[in-house]
Amino acid sequence: MSLLFAAPGWDAGPWLKRFAALLPGHAIVTPDTLADRAAVRYAAVWRHPPGSLAHLPKLEAIFSLGAGVDHILSDPRLPDVAIARVVNADLTARMSEWVVLNCLMHLRQTRRYARQQRERMWADDDDQPAANEVRVGVLGLGELGRDAALKLRALGFPVAGWSARAKNVAGIAGFAGPAGLEAMLAETDILVCLLPLTSATRGILDARLIARLARDGRLGGPVLVNAGRGGLQVEADILAALESGALKAASLDVFETEPLPADSPLWAHPAVFVTPHNAALSHPDAVARAIAAQILAFERGEPLRHVVDRGRGY
Amino acid sequence: MSLLFAAPGWDAGPWLKRFAALLPGHAIVTPDTLADRAAVRYAAVWRHPPGSLAHLPKLEAIFSLGAGVDHILSDPRLPDVAIARVVNADLTARMSEWVVLNCLMHLRQTRRYARQQRERMWADDDDQPAANEVRVGVLGLGELGRDAALKLRALGFPVAGWSARAKNVAGIAGFAGPAGLEAMLAETDILVCLLPLTSATRGILDARLIARLARDGRLGGPVLVNAGRGGLQVEADILAALESGALKAASLDVFETEPLPADSPLWAHPAVFVTPHNAALSHPDAVARAIAAQILAFERGEPLRHVVDRGRGY
Repeated sequence: MSLLFAAPGWDAGPWLKRFAALLPGHAIVTPDTLADRAAVRYAAVWRHPPGSLAHLPKLEAIFSLGAGVDHILSDPRLPDVAIARVVNADLTARMSEWVVLNCLMHLRQTRRYARQQRERMWADDDDQPAANEVRVGVLGLGELGRDAALKLRALGFPVAGWSARAKNVAGIAGFAGPAGLEAMLAETDILVCLLPLTSATRGILDARLIARLARDGRLGGPVLVNAGRGGLQVEADILAALESGALKAASLDVFETEPLPADSPLWAHPAVFVTPHNAALSHPDAVARAIAAQILAFERGEPLRHVVDRGRGY
Repeated sequence: MSLLFAAPGWDAGPWLKRFAALLPGHAIVTPDTLADRAAVRYAAVWRHPPGSLAHLPKLEAIFSLGAGVDHILSDPRLPDVAIARVVNADLTARMSEWVVLNCLMHLRQTRRYARQQRERMWADDDDQPAANEVRVGVLGLGELGRDAALKLRALGFPVAGWSARAKNVAGIAGFAGPAGLEAMLAETDILVCLLPLTSATRGILDARLIARLARDGRLGGPVLVNAGRGGLQVEADILAALESGALKAASLDVFETEPLPADSPLWAHPAVFVTPHNAALSHPDAVARAIAAQILAFERGEPLRHVVDRGRGY
């Protein structure tokens, strides 16, 4: 009975060690060490090579090693077994750190004060808004969106949240569906995107959406903060919006092509904050523990949790 | 019956307008327009000229226009009337924004990723700690320290707090007195200073204190975050500690001399974040409202709140 770990480009060592310790009685294998295909019961994957999960006759479940399952569902030869999202407090907390940090950087004009420091300039902004004057809209109210929304609220931001189907989060103004999206955007100064990438959300962060953001806010223009997936954003539209003033600034952790190509104008744009898709790292300790706990519960006869709905795509 | 507004260097216009609207029946005067000294019942001040509050025979109370009252108590000819600190949610919330922002910037290596962006370098830190692995110690558990501590806690940091006299804040490990200070410092990775400036705290952020901070933390060395007062810090010691590695980095909003002199090495130090004493601006709307409410309550016969203990100095 084995677990197949398939995450090309990752350092497998720490993961194999942890899974082995957490799952006694299970062999932990990689595509390179996989000998007995019929022994594989589970797969833990991140951007596995398409087709590499086929021909595993006893496979029962596929676990994502990071937030999001679009990298699994894009495999045209994906076997018809349960897919489980990773949900763990560590990943969620790290994502919220990045989201809150970026919202505060835009609010408190970090770039301006960094420039002033370089110029040894002591100068203030008498018109500095407080968090409670800047409206944040969160796209996506799954585990990540919900936690980020609540932490932004705790910092004083008025927070709204949008999801495809209505969700109720205490203290957060809830919006749902296409009409709800328009309504929320019209009252959003900072748009935080934590949507899953599906056929319904691909390219959602485009010129049309940006044009619907509030223009009367205290930041002097709307700000986009995307830590969902690069496929959600249309980078040409974002750059054009930054040039035209339709967008004041952006924080992007994800990109249409990753690593972000060296010739992308996003790198050098003065109003863009780039991070290398590390808003919420999958730490082996926390993620391996979450997946191992799922497997052990499943083997005790409990149902798998956080199972993906293939129709919805998340 | 008048209120004397004395804040040299500030734009008085917005303040006078707000106080006039909030306190009908009171004349609002400045040192320049002050004609009838015997009419002055209240003074609202920020760094008033020493001696300028003497010879106001009917003065009943002095209100600070910003956080801290050291700028009032340093006046050798201060009249013997009540002094009230300003406590309002806007000022407190703004201070916590700055504190949380700076703790997150050190945690999430903002300077590193800004440099990588300039260099178009896509590179990650596999050893990135999460907030729950980085211990924050807050010096001062007054209104500001308490709020910052709770918001840091909400973001996931383990938070301890120190105050001269023991205070109990839910979720925050409390320390008090000289022995408590040593104990807290030994378990602190990020030290946040929100102390009042008094004879007991002047120069407290010195080489001796820095040497007592934890050396085994996940940030690779202790970090100092000071938004209290410049007089709390010994800048020569901080610079020496940054050079020796006793300190990893610092965020400073306040300085021994303000504006920070153009020749200060702090401006150009790669591990120092400088802001121009604007962590928590006194916004006329919120602060004038808080002071006017105090005056109106006082005139209804209620006791003044947030009255300074001159012996303690805050």
